[in-house]
Amino acid sequence: MIDKIDHIGIAVHSIAEKTPLYRDVLGLAFEGEEVIEEQGVRVAFFRVGEAMIELLEPLDKSGPVARFLERHGEGIHHLALGCPDIDEGRSRVEAAGIRLLSDKPLDGAHSKLISFLHPKDTGKVLLELTQRNENSEKAT
Amino acid sequence: MIDKIDHIGIAVHSIAEKTPLYRDVLGLAFEGEEVIEEQGVRVAFFRVGEAMIELLEPLDKSGPVARFLERHGEGIHHLALGCPDIDEGRSRVEAAGIRLLSDKPLDGAHSKLISFLHPKDTGKVLLELTQRNENSEKAT
Repeated sequence: MIDKIDHIGIAVHSIAEKTPLYRDVLGLAFEGEEVIEEQGVRVAFFRVGEAMIELLEPLDKSGPVARFLERHGEGIHHLALGCPDIDEGRSRVEAAGIRLLSDKPLDGAHSKLISFLHPKDTGKVLLELTQRNENSEKAT
Repeated sequence: MIDKIDHIGIAVHSIAEKTPLYRDVLGLAFEGEEVIEEQGVRVAFFRVGEAMIELLEPLDKSGPVARFLERHGEGIHHLALGCPDIDEGRSRVEAAGIRLLSDKPLDGAHSKLISFLHPKDTGKVLLELTQRNENSEKAT
């Protein structure tokens, strides 16, 4: 069902401020930025082996990442697990009694399909299922 | 310097309680448990591609993971980045003015050498550098 870590999402106040740490100090390749209006964030990706670190900067004060920053401050926000078939992943998770945060998969960065598991059902870990596609693999 | 995510550490009250989520629901291969006395934790590993999810359960109420659970509750605790040469990694981090939490590399699970970066210097993300070795790769 799951074959790799797709990315680790890290909530930050400013991508520009944290880029030197990930790119210059840790030496990770910067793989571009993207605005995801529906989730109220700008994201920046840094390659780490088969996975990415995704920095999440809120576009305004209203989205879920803005609320996370207000409550917790900066820090690791979610863990995204890559799976070949998100519908199968969703079914499996729901069959185990774990709630999903959306009725169907949403559009994520790189045109991937994503679904979040309810953190109250996973020991407060915000887990995301991510279905890769050919285009997204080329883009990353 | 860094070539993959080595593991994601997740603080839990009970490994036994969370194992069904990671092994049975998400379908990750369980790769064994280990007690790390110096850090006051029992750890369990689950394979995800080239990385692992590491569940951390405190041995008593005194260690850093016990304190994390007391303050924050369960959740993602740290992100470990694999590097071929931990001394080079430590030098590079220190040259950038980022503090390390130990004067020299410590022994981690699977006999790997590890060093934590000070989370106050990394935007509250507890980052770990991990140097793999031949034995640890065989063990995992």
